Amino acid sequence: MPDALPSDSVGLVSPKTIRFDAPLELACGQTLAHYELVVETYGTLNADASNAVLICHALSGHHHAAGFHSLDDRKPGWWDSCIGPGKPIDTNRFYVVSLNNLGGCHGSTGPNSLNPDTGKPYGPDFPVVTVADWVASQARLADHLGIEQWAAVVGGSLGGMQALQWSLDFPDRLRHAVVIASTPRLTAQNIAFNEVARQAITSDPEFHEGRYYDENLVPRRGLMLARMVGHITYLSDASMGEKFGRELREEAYKFGFDAEFQVESYLRYQGERFSEVFDANTYLLMTRALDYFDPAYEFGGDLSKALAPATCEYLVLSFSTDWRFSPARSEEMVNAMISARKRVNYAEIDAPWGHDAFLIPTPRYTDIFTAYMDRVAREAGA
Amino acid sequence: MPDALPSDSVGLVSPKTIRFDAPLELACGQTLAHYELVVETYGTLNADASNAVLICHALSGHHHAAGFHSLDDRKPGWWDSCIGPGKPIDTNRFYVVSLNNLGGCHGSTGPNSLNPDTGKPYGPDFPVVTVADWVASQARLADHLGIEQWAAVVGGSLGGMQALQWSLDFPDRLRHAVVIASTPRLTAQNIAFNEVARQAITSDPEFHEGRYYDENLVPRRGLMLARMVGHITYLSDASMGEKFGRELREEAYKFGFDAEFQVESYLRYQGERFSEVFDANTYLLMTRALDYFDPAYEFGGDLSKALAPATCEYLVLSFSTDWRFSPARSEEMVNAMISARKRVNYAEIDAPWGHDAFLIPTPRYTDIFTAYMDRVAREAGA
Repeated sequence: MPDALPSDSVGLVSPKTIRFDAPLELACGQTLAHYELVVETYGTLNADASNAVLICHALSGHHHAAGFHSLDDRKPGWWDSCIGPGKPIDTNRFYVVSLNNLGGCHGSTGPNSLNPDTGKPYGPDFPVVTVADWVASQARLADHLGIEQWAAVVGGSLGGMQALQWSLDFPDRLRHAVVIASTPRLTAQNIAFNEVARQAITSDPEFHEGRYYDENLVPRRGLMLARMVGHITYLSDASMGEKFGRELREEAYKFGFDAEFQVESYLRYQGERFSEVFDANTYLLMTRALDYFDPAYEFGGDLSKALAPATCEYLVLSFSTDWRFSPARSEEMVNAMISARKRVNYAEIDAPWGHDAFLIPTPRYTDIFTAYMDRVAREAGA
Repeated sequence: MPDALPSDSVGLVSPKTIRFDAPLELACGQTLAHYELVVETYGTLNADASNAVLICHALSGHHHAAGFHSLDDRKPGWWDSCIGPGKPIDTNRFYVVSLNNLGGCHGSTGPNSLNPDTGKPYGPDFPVVTVADWVASQARLADHLGIEQWAAVVGGSLGGMQALQWSLDFPDRLRHAVVIASTPRLTAQNIAFNEVARQAITSDPEFHEGRYYDENLVPRRGLMLARMVGHITYLSDASMGEKFGRELREEAYKFGFDAEFQVESYLRYQGERFSEVFDANTYLLMTRALDYFDPAYEFGGDLSKALAPATCEYLVLSFSTDWRFSPARSEEMVNAMISARKRVNYAEIDAPWGHDAFLIPTPRYTDIFTAYMDRVAREAGA
């Protein structure tokens, strides 16, 4: 808990819930008759609504990206390192909008929401949503907030996919897309790790085919395993080595299967904590949205063709030790942008933290991100 | 099934079981009063017993390394690519010994064997075994077979650790150690993947704290997950991409959680098959033996000091795309061997297959391995 809120914090923030009554047609063919999105905003929308920035979250993220919900909060929002007064996404200049995506488990309509048709939680009946569906729902959110055009749409990992999708589906509605630690499509290895996570969840006897809410159960073991395997892919071999090495919890080997190495207890703890706060059906949906994302698919695999409609300028950032979405995947995107004659800026940041580096404010990352967003703000008259 | 046995096959082979009645003290402090090892041999021991080669198996391996058990076998032993007439480990010249290690589930004494004290399977009461314990048991096997000194001890991955340990614990009893796709110790990331596998197994409700035999159950889901995550680490991102890419099983997305991508059904199939043939308690033991292996540990992390007693010559091989035990880990070993003034030969083989490359006969691998073993044979007068 901060004794006083840090001066570069957006301070105390409150989410609000916005209801949408127009039906939303989804890529899977199903329609959501109405839905709610939970949203936080930081900073002030200027008179011509030109300074709005949309933050898109990754697999386990949500609307609470910056600031504190109460003075008792031990931690700020998940991207507080990059959002706040004087930070790369400077809330003295930008009006920042952050939401929990459809299918999420932090307040927006998702599998743990009540299905109006049955009066019970949707569970497995919640439709599979795609990155394009999220972008469509975010466009309605922009309408609701009176934002005709985003100064920038920004996201890391799965969030970066949303920023890219925005530039293809609503080219007139954003001036910049910031795509960090992301990829134009998952590899077989990426899909394979997602599949292990899904199998862990769906094979947990307490999953009950996704209707665990009705049984008052949670597939905790499955979620824990899913998170453990995911977590390994977010870190680099080197950063895990740096953080834990082969350090033991006690002095000598105990010749058993309790957690003996620090890295074992760390992973167990992370997995257990996650299983207490995240919804298993949402985890399934998020991983599937990752698997399906592939804007080049309809263009015979040619990403530069998929990029044709885009008019925004791009900032693409990757991290040297990210083996989940390696710099090579960002370069693939950048090369396609160049082929398609788009305006693109690219940097590979040297950082030891693996995929998680996008959450950690290393100097070069912060400098490049800040300089770019400064230009975005100046263009917006902010 | 081969119509006729291939001419470079060792042909039909039969395992035999050898009983050891002298108690074996283990690193964990427990003692096995007696135990059995199941063994296959290929080729003929020469008059002065100088042409014997020991094969040490990896995590899921066993004694059946080459040849066929019957004409109906669809596949030969697990390292048939490297063992046979005219192959790198040439059975026209060498007498090859291959065993299932203690704690295994293919016939040697292990958790699924009857505990003489209780008349029930050992289950979780089977002691945690280490690489050094295996080497000690293999030394007794050598005694039994009349082999004073191995021409070479050879192994890949966890098998390579055994070859290295042999050179430290019984320096006079081998002339060559061949350490392939191995590492002097696991990294935090390696241990983390093992821990996910163990958690998958032990959190399976059908695990029953390791006493699933008594319940006539098998923790199939846990073993399946363990194998799936392991399997991903045996392959490279590139080879998975080459083999599966993002190929779908049917024409279009189905927007659900059934296996849609080929890589998903491949992994599920591999996991399911493994869960039908492998023992969960053995999987736990094997991963722990991997975790614990660290010959430098008692020497303040200085591997070259640990190597002091060794007198054999080493061949160390690594594979360019192996990210489980990367070439850098082999180089660590080689550098320590050089510091300790040991005779060492090293090659990094360019191969796309990740860790599994040690099982796949690519030309440069086969050439280097063959040339080295030819020298070993000539020295042995074979």
